[in-house]
Amino acid sequence: MTYPIDQTHAVELTSWVEAANLPDSDFPIQNLPFCVFQRNDGGDSRPGVAIGDQILDLRRCAEGSLLPPEFVPAARLGDLSAIMQLSLSQRRALRHWLSDALSDLDSAVAEARENLLVAQSSVKLLLPCRVGNYTDFYASIYHATNVGSMLRPDNPLLPNYKHIPIGYHGRASSVVASGTPCHRPTGQLPPGEGESGPGFGPCKNLDYELEVGMFVGRGNELGETIPIARAEERLFGLCLLNDWSARDMQRWEYQPLGPFLAKSFLTTISPFVVTMEALAPFRAPAFVRTDGDPQPLDYLRDATNQQAGGVDLRLEVYLDTEQMRREGVAAERLSSGSMQSMYWTIGQMLTHHSSNGCNMQTGDLLGTGTVSGPERNSRGCLLELTWDGEFGAPVPGSQRTPLSLPTGEKRVFLAAGDRVILRGSCEREGFRRIGFGECAGTVTN
Amino acid sequence: MTYPIDQTHAVELTSWVEAANLPDSDFPIQNLPFCVFQRNDGGDSRPGVAIGDQILDLRRCAEGSLLPPEFVPAARLGDLSAIMQLSLSQRRALRHWLSDALSDLDSAVAEARENLLVAQSSVKLLLPCRVGNYTDFYASIYHATNVGSMLRPDNPLLPNYKHIPIGYHGRASSVVASGTPCHRPTGQLPPGEGESGPGFGPCKNLDYELEVGMFVGRGNELGETIPIARAEERLFGLCLLNDWSARDMQRWEYQPLGPFLAKSFLTTISPFVVTMEALAPFRAPAFVRTDGDPQPLDYLRDATNQQAGGVDLRLEVYLDTEQMRREGVAAERLSSGSMQSMYWTIGQMLTHHSSNGCNMQTGDLLGTGTVSGPERNSRGCLLELTWDGEFGAPVPGSQRTPLSLPTGEKRVFLAAGDRVILRGSCEREGFRRIGFGECAGTVTN
Repeated sequence: MTYPIDQTHAVELTSWVEAANLPDSDFPIQNLPFCVFQRNDGGDSRPGVAIGDQILDLRRCAEGSLLPPEFVPAARLGDLSAIMQLSLSQRRALRHWLSDALSDLDSAVAEARENLLVAQSSVKLLLPCRVGNYTDFYASIYHATNVGSMLRPDNPLLPNYKHIPIGYHGRASSVVASGTPCHRPTGQLPPGEGESGPGFGPCKNLDYELEVGMFVGRGNELGETIPIARAEERLFGLCLLNDWSARDMQRWEYQPLGPFLAKSFLTTISPFVVTMEALAPFRAPAFVRTDGDPQPLDYLRDATNQQAGGVDLRLEVYLDTEQMRREGVAAERLSSGSMQSMYWTIGQMLTHHSSNGCNMQTGDLLGTGTVSGPERNSRGCLLELTWDGEFGAPVPGSQRTPLSLPTGEKRVFLAAGDRVILRGSCEREGFRRIGFGECAGTVTN
Repeated sequence: MTYPIDQTHAVELTSWVEAANLPDSDFPIQNLPFCVFQRNDGGDSRPGVAIGDQILDLRRCAEGSLLPPEFVPAARLGDLSAIMQLSLSQRRALRHWLSDALSDLDSAVAEARENLLVAQSSVKLLLPCRVGNYTDFYASIYHATNVGSMLRPDNPLLPNYKHIPIGYHGRASSVVASGTPCHRPTGQLPPGEGESGPGFGPCKNLDYELEVGMFVGRGNELGETIPIARAEERLFGLCLLNDWSARDMQRWEYQPLGPFLAKSFLTTISPFVVTMEALAPFRAPAFVRTDGDPQPLDYLRDATNQQAGGVDLRLEVYLDTEQMRREGVAAERLSSGSMQSMYWTIGQMLTHHSSNGCNMQTGDLLGTGTVSGPERNSRGCLLELTWDGEFGAPVPGSQRTPLSLPTGEKRVFLAAGDRVILRGSCEREGFRRIGFGECAGTVTN
């Protein structure tokens, strides 16, 4: 299936929330991402929709009998779980209602705006839902090749990579919303030069990973599979995801069962979930496999896949340090890439995940893995950008390069006070740009 | 800390539930494991305690004002989560109340027994709680060495094994209670002889893994760690766990990020959680490291560890096939081992897991990994027992041996209709034997 482009995407549509009409707003009326928030002056957490610099309080819309009755139970919950469970036609109906209510100056919502809108700056943004299960994929062939090159220079890409969307189960409990501080983890560190055993202490190679997160809408029962042609309808929407990584811990622990504590201390996501409906105009061809690459096995092949399996989502990473903030230096852009560089589509990842009968549940979070592109400035983590300070053995002629910041500071990995900010947006001629907001976190120590 | 042995463990204590006093009962009054059940004639799921062949309905104890008031809110829930969250002194108080109520023929519980007891045979046993996070360790050095030998004959044990309790995040959604059928998963299978790419189809190498599951009681906040001396008090109790495994899928997918779909189609646990309090008499020395083995790093070293870090829990695996059931042949014991053969203690696993600040939550499930001992008949999975039918390359002089069953049937891996039953029990001179019940599942296809 494909999500249709309709009048809710029309470029000429504007909102009576003026800030939504500013060209650089992440949240024009064409976007309408969902979130969960709590007013700074207290009160329950509740579902909302971002519009310009405001949030529409869906709970209050329900209490004021403004919301169509079919959505009232979902709006009364403390998270998005029931909204994520809506059928496709209900989701579309809700989007159309929101689009009308926020564009029509005579709507009942516009009349009650004082009560229904709250400034984004005066709320706390929370996780969209309780993440029951978190899975992380490895879908960028550039990332897999770069990391593989550091570990196995002669054989960077393992034989399974082009056949199977590699993924692993992540830790759900440590998924947090943007703004949560990142405490540097402690753990076992690999033996140093001349040492026979590992040490224990604070991670020295703290890294971020730029990823896209996908939320599952309606799940499947244990033992059922999700055919590729039905995969996209099971996805609710996307967010930004920073898979913080302790590279030294990872190097020591990851064999033979994969990354564990190097990842499970924190995973940060952006609070706004951009729906699949909002992304409809920005779907794009999937990764074009080069000659000699195997075709995906049948269960991963979708007729619509090559035409619109990808998402043309620009992704950026910014860093500011304590010194930069003190000196008033703007955050430095470390990289800029596109989700289109992923070797596997979001539909392929979901279908593969359920291909063994694993039950996907509403609110499950799937990460794409680090989104890296072919160019140096599209690499989505420091390990790749600096070609590892301390990870692999230094090789003559290696690409090892610390990052230089405008303050003269250098970075191989993250230092105390560093703030990492992920941003994402979709642009296409003839459509309004939509944004993902920020996924940010500061390293405390 | 150590859990104390007290009058609730006295061998002479008996129950007015006569079946609990039979010598082969898994659930004498010294055990008192918790469960969640639902009457076959309907009704809500609720917490209970196994005694002999009966279950004490804690919800009804609360409704009848028999339960001490401090436990009433926990008994009103549909699962054990609030019981798992009780403080150590509350847990002990509840055990003493249960012990008194079920031994004293004049107790109010004994008087109301008609209303409060229900036969285990007339209930459905459910998961003890919603498993928020499931982690699987690899704590048997015999298992790790055996599996490593098949993959890397010259270098079976990786350099990190004796330093770090290897583990990985598992899939929480597919953890089910004993009795749930096992549907054979489909998935990518490794290229066969002369094939250039993988195939897709039903798993051909379906296996079980004999494990022990641990439930977390009170958790820790994100960024906090659990010191080794406080680890045991964060554990609520143990159960049996079958980590069903698709070996062919595993071989193809597991590099570089670890097992994924080879495990996430099903994980079965026994429904009765044997508490740490009940296990007090059966604690035993931890694994004795041989000369030359490194000592654990400080954060994993506990003064009480060598004396009572282990659990003297006998574990057995039984198999019956469709033909065996048809011919009335008793289930065949495939192996018998002990949890004492684990290289890492349950306390070390929990402390390590939280050593990076990962937040453990009430009801989180930790598996030990396959419990295998040094002898052939103590190997905890078919892969090891048959030394792999099809997993590693056949080696001259290899130990490959299919299992022979009393019916003349042979098995390398599981076939349709095969039922796998895990059993566990603790025995010690001067104490009543306590049992874990069964963890069973039948392969449907």
